[in-house]
Amino acid sequence: MTPDVKTTSEETLDPQDWESMRALGHRMVDDMLDYVQTLRERPSWKHAPDQVKEHFKTPVPQNPQPAEEIYEEFLENVLPYPLGNNHPRFWGWVFGTGTVLGSYADMLGATMNTNSGDFDHHSAIHVETQVINWFKQMLGYPASASGLLTSGCSVANLIGLAVARNVKAGFDVRTNGLQDVRGKMVLYASQEIHSSIQKSVELLGLGSDALRHIPVDERFRINLQELQATIAQDREAGLRPFCIVGAAGTVNTGATDDLEALADICRAEDMWFHVDGAFGAWAAIAPGVRDLVAGMERADSLAFDLHKWMYMPFEIGCVLVRHAEEHRKTFTLTPEYLEREIEGRGLTGGDLPWLTDYDFHLSRGFRALKAWMSLKEHGSLKYSRLIQQNIDQARYLGELIEARPELELSAPVELNIVCFRYVKSDMDDGALDTLNKEILVELQEQGIAVPSGTTINGKFVLRVGHTNHRSRREDFDFLVGEVIRIGADLA
Amino acid sequence: MTPDVKTTSEETLDPQDWESMRALGHRMVDDMLDYVQTLRERPSWKHAPDQVKEHFKTPVPQNPQPAEEIYEEFLENVLPYPLGNNHPRFWGWVFGTGTVLGSYADMLGATMNTNSGDFDHHSAIHVETQVINWFKQMLGYPASASGLLTSGCSVANLIGLAVARNVKAGFDVRTNGLQDVRGKMVLYASQEIHSSIQKSVELLGLGSDALRHIPVDERFRINLQELQATIAQDREAGLRPFCIVGAAGTVNTGATDDLEALADICRAEDMWFHVDGAFGAWAAIAPGVRDLVAGMERADSLAFDLHKWMYMPFEIGCVLVRHAEEHRKTFTLTPEYLEREIEGRGLTGGDLPWLTDYDFHLSRGFRALKAWMSLKEHGSLKYSRLIQQNIDQARYLGELIEARPELELSAPVELNIVCFRYVKSDMDDGALDTLNKEILVELQEQGIAVPSGTTINGKFVLRVGHTNHRSRREDFDFLVGEVIRIGADLA
Repeated sequence: MTPDVKTTSEETLDPQDWESMRALGHRMVDDMLDYVQTLRERPSWKHAPDQVKEHFKTPVPQNPQPAEEIYEEFLENVLPYPLGNNHPRFWGWVFGTGTVLGSYADMLGATMNTNSGDFDHHSAIHVETQVINWFKQMLGYPASASGLLTSGCSVANLIGLAVARNVKAGFDVRTNGLQDVRGKMVLYASQEIHSSIQKSVELLGLGSDALRHIPVDERFRINLQELQATIAQDREAGLRPFCIVGAAGTVNTGATDDLEALADICRAEDMWFHVDGAFGAWAAIAPGVRDLVAGMERADSLAFDLHKWMYMPFEIGCVLVRHAEEHRKTFTLTPEYLEREIEGRGLTGGDLPWLTDYDFHLSRGFRALKAWMSLKEHGSLKYSRLIQQNIDQARYLGELIEARPELELSAPVELNIVCFRYVKSDMDDGALDTLNKEILVELQEQGIAVPSGTTINGKFVLRVGHTNHRSRREDFDFLVGEVIRIGADLA
Repeated sequence: MTPDVKTTSEETLDPQDWESMRALGHRMVDDMLDYVQTLRERPSWKHAPDQVKEHFKTPVPQNPQPAEEIYEEFLENVLPYPLGNNHPRFWGWVFGTGTVLGSYADMLGATMNTNSGDFDHHSAIHVETQVINWFKQMLGYPASASGLLTSGCSVANLIGLAVARNVKAGFDVRTNGLQDVRGKMVLYASQEIHSSIQKSVELLGLGSDALRHIPVDERFRINLQELQATIAQDREAGLRPFCIVGAAGTVNTGATDDLEALADICRAEDMWFHVDGAFGAWAAIAPGVRDLVAGMERADSLAFDLHKWMYMPFEIGCVLVRHAEEHRKTFTLTPEYLEREIEGRGLTGGDLPWLTDYDFHLSRGFRALKAWMSLKEHGSLKYSRLIQQNIDQARYLGELIEARPELELSAPVELNIVCFRYVKSDMDDGALDTLNKEILVELQEQGIAVPSGTTINGKFVLRVGHTNHRSRREDFDFLVGEVIRIGADLA
């Protein structure tokens, strides 16, 4: 507990010296611009040393520290050790790469400090509504759908599945919950579906054993025959199939399920169709691959991120729900302190409903601003070109790999993910697993490039998940050369 | 759908003209500083006109727009129409008021664009861990507890209650869910508890009828006798009481339950003790009122915000969980693409677990940075003084109200919330409700001040929820004078 203090005169947290705070802001803008402009000159990742981690173990500061000093600490101990995902040769997992105007927008939004949840007579809620409408237009989703910006796809999936659960239960889940219900509700997704689906299913009280993981075909898409057979078996066993989750771009290989077929099955079986399109949804705007996600626009709910393949800074995702009223009914709950006083006048007097009527978050920041500014800055056509560029570059990498006998492509390059490994004819799979782990760690530790690793058909492989607007073909040439060099050294 | 485009040469989203982007950043810093510095000179709220709302109805832009032009649009249509909560006389609902360095930190964090969820060998996860440790120290919570920054208290409550549900179920909720379980799990909170608790209970599949709303005493605290009687009845009826949610600062009146007593009951009944301390948790650092929240440090899980009473920009909240391992077991789920390759080396090689092992979010932005910079900028002692200052100012307002026969205090001023109304002896309660709604809307529409409204004991009242570091006593003098002026005019 804090020692006793006395209030003397009235204080604020506003700067005591506005001009030095202004000068600091200018310095930060310069440093951040320099930082982004010189990304390519630095290693793709730098291991934070132990003394940096130790730096963050001091107790809570009791007394003020000049803002300039805090910023020096930031420059010394925080900024040099990022996760690294902005770098042109960072392709690990699926992160985004950010933009300068996106960062500025977060400062503007934080300064306005607007809550985008409630009320109608202020700007933020209209900016968010417009951005949602733009996403519907870009993805070919119905204009009548509801939608929300979220912190990311985990929450977008959670919201989509919550609506699915409540709509398809056949009873009042909000009031009665799932307790004491007979006839278990079950849902379906491929074995390659993202772990956030399981996390959502667990949080929603459905239980992970209600999530049926269906095997995939050779292209890592859900096996439709197995899916239909499992649904039929489950119905016979007295269970209640209520939802299919389709993947638009799996995290392992970038595979996309046959979404048209899943939409057809959902219609025939009276089930909810949810699509997890974390990054893959954006294939819809890439001219060369948009057929891959055909049927996605038929989803009852669609979840995707903007901080992955739309390159915006963390955190921003989105959920769209075809049935706006069902979406609203899943979340609306207006306590008495939020009731409108007089229609048309005062903060509560504008149009209903508010975004909190569609959300479980009651405080909602102004993340819409970075989406709004970004889409205006580049326009949808440039985003289309960039998404296509990433796909073309991924295919280029695939071709480089196939041209080299030391490398083996581990899965078809469906979208923006390339899985491969270094091979040597006299080594068995166990030894190759170890070797490729060593190669991966060397690429990272030497600051050359950051792929990640995963397991495909039981084999450890290097994985390039490409959502990077800064990468060039020469970066992939370099990667291939370095993997072969390190592989040969280690083997 | 977007028309076909062709990739020609390799493009990026980086600025084509770095120097003009730099100049724009400088201009934004200047404008934002001016904006905050002149808050007091502007009306406390400004109704966004219809043409501003119409401005946000254009379709998705296809082609790029210069960043400077976008910023002009922002200056014209977005910035002038905020929710208004930064203003020195905004006391509606419970919002925060933000700081300049907090906004800068959001720009720095967005530029680093770090994911704070995974891995150990980068700075953001250590900044977040330090900030969590600081909150534990400030609130007297055990150092061994786990914790997470969240988007706000809605998510913090959801996480706390998810752990409670999974720990107290007596079976494997993650795997089996709540379906087909006999003996309904029920939990308890006062009638004054925040609606986010009900939203969490619904999302978790428990059902809102599992949430027992217990009546309150004359100070709006949970009635302990009624609570104990209801638990006993529920046990007799075969239900399974598993959790009590205590309020530290209710939204209506700022009441705090007897948290020591609730902790005792939970211990005796083997129930989980969750505290919703959205803003009220911070009474713990105010020398004059800390006894109000005594017992809070005994909670099994504690949820609170930083974007309300700690004045940081949206979105930032926190959850602490006394039983770190139970917290981890509720959420950990490591898919194969996140497994560590080699201990100690590479991005995955650092210490486990990661923050995503405690969260359902997998992408986690760098909101820790604004907390870290803010706590260093002011020090914990200044935060103590500011929280106390808000409480003293709320009491001052209470005294002003009690001194005026035209005004009636509607609930005791326990903390930072003051509920009151304009009264006139020849008007009945219905007429007074209408009159006070009119007064409220006039205060808002005339830009004088922004209280909100609520219903206390069936009567509509004006409500000042004071978490504003910019308010002075003179602001409350002004409010009282204006309420009486407008009330007399309208009556």
